[in-house]
Amino acid sequence: MPGEFALIDRIRARVRSRADVLLGIGDDAAVLRVPAGHDLVVTSDTLVSGVHFPAETSPADIGWKALAVNLSDLAAMAATPAWCTLAITLPDADGDWVDAFLDGFLDLAQQHDVCLVGGDTTRGPLSITVTAHGIVPEGLALRRDGAHAGDEVWVTGSIGDAAGALAQWRARGPSSAKLRYRLDRPTPRVAAGLALRGIATAGIDLSDGLAADLGHVLAASGLGARIDLGRLPTSRTLADHFDEAQRWPLQLSGGDDYELCFTAPASAAFGIEKALASCGVTGTVIGQLVTEPGLHCTTPEGEDYVPAAAGFEHFQGVH
Amino acid sequence: MPGEFALIDRIRARVRSRADVLLGIGDDAAVLRVPAGHDLVVTSDTLVSGVHFPAETSPADIGWKALAVNLSDLAAMAATPAWCTLAITLPDADGDWVDAFLDGFLDLAQQHDVCLVGGDTTRGPLSITVTAHGIVPEGLALRRDGAHAGDEVWVTGSIGDAAGALAQWRARGPSSAKLRYRLDRPTPRVAAGLALRGIATAGIDLSDGLAADLGHVLAASGLGARIDLGRLPTSRTLADHFDEAQRWPLQLSGGDDYELCFTAPASAAFGIEKALASCGVTGTVIGQLVTEPGLHCTTPEGEDYVPAAAGFEHFQGVH
Repeated sequence: MPGEFALIDRIRARVRSRADVLLGIGDDAAVLRVPAGHDLVVTSDTLVSGVHFPAETSPADIGWKALAVNLSDLAAMAATPAWCTLAITLPDADGDWVDAFLDGFLDLAQQHDVCLVGGDTTRGPLSITVTAHGIVPEGLALRRDGAHAGDEVWVTGSIGDAAGALAQWRARGPSSAKLRYRLDRPTPRVAAGLALRGIATAGIDLSDGLAADLGHVLAASGLGARIDLGRLPTSRTLADHFDEAQRWPLQLSGGDDYELCFTAPASAAFGIEKALASCGVTGTVIGQLVTEPGLHCTTPEGEDYVPAAAGFEHFQGVH
Repeated sequence: MPGEFALIDRIRARVRSRADVLLGIGDDAAVLRVPAGHDLVVTSDTLVSGVHFPAETSPADIGWKALAVNLSDLAAMAATPAWCTLAITLPDADGDWVDAFLDGFLDLAQQHDVCLVGGDTTRGPLSITVTAHGIVPEGLALRRDGAHAGDEVWVTGSIGDAAGALAQWRARGPSSAKLRYRLDRPTPRVAAGLALRGIATAGIDLSDGLAADLGHVLAASGLGARIDLGRLPTSRTLADHFDEAQRWPLQLSGGDDYELCFTAPASAAFGIEKALASCGVTGTVIGQLVTEPGLHCTTPEGEDYVPAAAGFEHFQGVH
């Protein structure tokens, strides 16, 4: 079994660098250069075994997801991913586990040209904290508080798949590999986030569920929203496994989709469709912002629908 | 018991901001501005209960230490601390625990004008990962690989106190509150690190013990060192509790001192003394760099002395 320094060497040997990394893994800290005229965007997310993923999740999937959830936050800020640190706490210095973890982690990192520049390896119950850094031209970060009444509410891709997988996992009944893949291997919408720079008025990523996450935008912008449940983008697989009444709670209150939810004036709709299409991502208008506070959901039959829970909070539920 | 969002609000309410924090806690990520002509310095360290601190350590001490070990890394790079993120994993959403943790964490943060800009709160076995960000004028970061043969080896303050406290804790016999304070409340040598900019040739902070940490400088610089054990700076309290033969292993192989070890040509000695004195820190020359690889320690009687262990590695020992 390798010690801590051997593990770090193992990680370092697999990392691909970038020109703006003046000093990467192997000193007291990394030295990085933010380009002139750009701001630095920083986010940090932790995954705990048994809380954020089922304990039997493969190390490669854990590695992928640990980075994906952070890149998703950068995407929601319309930032270009650049660097990350990785703090990994493991029961044992299991070199094979770390290698498999890195397979997933570095696969995604290399897809987005993200350089792992440092971190820590410690012994303890399995948990992973990634801090991701991105850059954005000054003043162009996409915030939660820029929405206006009348703006349309959009989501990318489809929502509810990850929550569907989790529901199947909990029920220990039939399960869909496609849904499970969306839970284990979320796609951070990085290109979509960049495409929305200067177009969207506010944005957030869907990690805790549409109701909770859109709720943050509403709170930050001092607005409410009307959502048409019939317009929620739904994958064919989710529709095959869950009927409408089962789907809505998954789509509104289930987390882990890592799609983007954003707002924009109706006049921008065609530009948004083109921008998203250019990066191969679908976008769907699901409702509109209103001055009256609160989230108002309506069924296709025109009836009011109240989301069951206010979204996932780590201290109140178990993934 | 508060939920996750209530905990975050609790933390946010106590944070003091800075002008270069364009967006702090409360969005998908923080937006920060690195001043022109400066590089970004990033480090990340995790503390795990029962591994990096005894489980009964007070939350305020844990909070202090979680930030201190990261600021110590910035100090070793001669960087000015600016911002940090905090990822905190807790068994329960215990608001009182978090408040006490913040007492220590924010006390140190405010001493160094460090702004907490984001992070994550999750449920699980107690562990804390802090990612700290500093800035340094372009090209002035103090690295491990800049040392030259003939340079003198310095350490700040005194070493061995924290390891002495840990030895007393393990023996469950008499203990010194002064030594324990150095274990629980390490002082990151931030001002000393800044004072050494452009003077020291290489530097590192002493987290894993002098032998291991100086060993990293030697490996990075392709050199060896001769250390005179009689010159190791020793606090009166450590000397009161441990005789020489007991002290040397603590000073060479014990960790957690968070002093700086650095190298500089002998011609710089007077300048270094003045620079350190201006920030109220003592500095002691303990040996010299040589071209022959390896760490050679000599007792005051001129005998060779071989350090017992190669320093602390998290996967091989328990703090």
